[in-house]
Amino acid sequence: MTSLPSPSTLKVLAFDTFGTVSDWHAGVSSVLAQLFPELDSSLVARDWRRMYAPIMAEVEIGERPWTLLDDLQRETLDRLLRSKYDVVPTAEQLDVAVHSWHVLPGWPDSSAGLHRLKKKFTICALSNGNVALLNEMAKTSDFPWDFIGGSDLWRHYKPASEVYLGLVRLMQVEPSEVMMVATHVTDLAAARTFGLQTAYVSRPTEWGPETKREEPNPDDAFFVRGIDELATLLGC
Amino acid sequence: MTSLPSPSTLKVLAFDTFGTVSDWHAGVSSVLAQLFPELDSSLVARDWRRMYAPIMAEVEIGERPWTLLDDLQRETLDRLLRSKYDVVPTAEQLDVAVHSWHVLPGWPDSSAGLHRLKKKFTICALSNGNVALLNEMAKTSDFPWDFIGGSDLWRHYKPASEVYLGLVRLMQVEPSEVMMVATHVTDLAAARTFGLQTAYVSRPTEWGPETKREEPNPDDAFFVRGIDELATLLGC
Repeated sequence: MTSLPSPSTLKVLAFDTFGTVSDWHAGVSSVLAQLFPELDSSLVARDWRRMYAPIMAEVEIGERPWTLLDDLQRETLDRLLRSKYDVVPTAEQLDVAVHSWHVLPGWPDSSAGLHRLKKKFTICALSNGNVALLNEMAKTSDFPWDFIGGSDLWRHYKPASEVYLGLVRLMQVEPSEVMMVATHVTDLAAARTFGLQTAYVSRPTEWGPETKREEPNPDDAFFVRGIDELATLLGC
Repeated sequence: MTSLPSPSTLKVLAFDTFGTVSDWHAGVSSVLAQLFPELDSSLVARDWRRMYAPIMAEVEIGERPWTLLDDLQRETLDRLLRSKYDVVPTAEQLDVAVHSWHVLPGWPDSSAGLHRLKKKFTICALSNGNVALLNEMAKTSDFPWDFIGGSDLWRHYKPASEVYLGLVRLMQVEPSEVMMVATHVTDLAAARTFGLQTAYVSRPTEWGPETKREEPNPDDAFFVRGIDELATLLGC
């Protein structure tokens, strides 16, 4: 561990949401199973999730104007169902499927762990979801965020610098006083680039039946098996 | 009451903070009393508070670039002490005085009332304080905001349209689905201009020993004596 944080210099914890605090595979595939019973809902959910990073990158490189995640998700699901599954979804089916991302179930340890961490640190969502989506998720799953850092605040998607440094600026702290917490190595690598501390949360079933390779990285201050374990290690 | 809200159309409650949920006169004057025991701390607090709206207006009309409230407050207190009280404050005294606005005590009904309202509505701070200040206040006084709408999100001060409509946009609701809650008639009048519902919270001792004239306005949906009374009237 090359960058163990000093508790006195850690003030803000910034959490990725989709996959890190909530279980997108379970939430999305259960809704897809109701909407499209003839399809393999887990596979559709995973296919859909794979289109997420590329289309946000189109916004970041300037190929698209700023677009909310909901609208990007709607477009990718429509395209996926038509091209790979030969299904032409109705507008209402798309609405319901896109909304499933607003009310994803939390992992069993998330809410309790966040409540413990909140007593000692400022805990923020720092997500590519927008504020309204993240608020709905928080109210559904009792995520007691001190602040919701939605992508529509900065009109940028991670891993853009504006997101990480935008939160640093709003919180009036130094980058090293913020720890990014995520189950995605690219998110954490970007956060380190901008001077944040990082913690990896292992979520081996993030992709449902698909194996996810996870191993400790010495550049992360922590490698934990849940938000509750992070709370314990941070003395909460 | 000309605009009684239909509960089904009310989704978001936006709260003014200084005076409405927290007692600036008590908090600021107690800190000033420690810093400047030779002065009438209540009078200094009130004099200082009177310089608040005019200097924010200088930002809104373009006489100043965007400036955080802390920096405006620091400048006005320095000017006030030198010009009226013949006191030259140290940098540390100014720091401590300005910080008193971050940790204002809540009114006795605020935290409990907000907790009740949060179960049924999305509750937001919508304040001229910045996000970090409002977060510190929330953690000090247990204000369980779903979202902190600080002025640095929009780089505008109330009563600018960008603040009220900025929150409406982030929450992805209609203006009429938001209710501004404040103890200041100018804040509520502006909110109505932009289509929000309004509720007046009576805080007769906001200005300490100074009488504050308060009377129901038929344009407000509610005139309440505390956040707890608002929670009761809204069925929480």
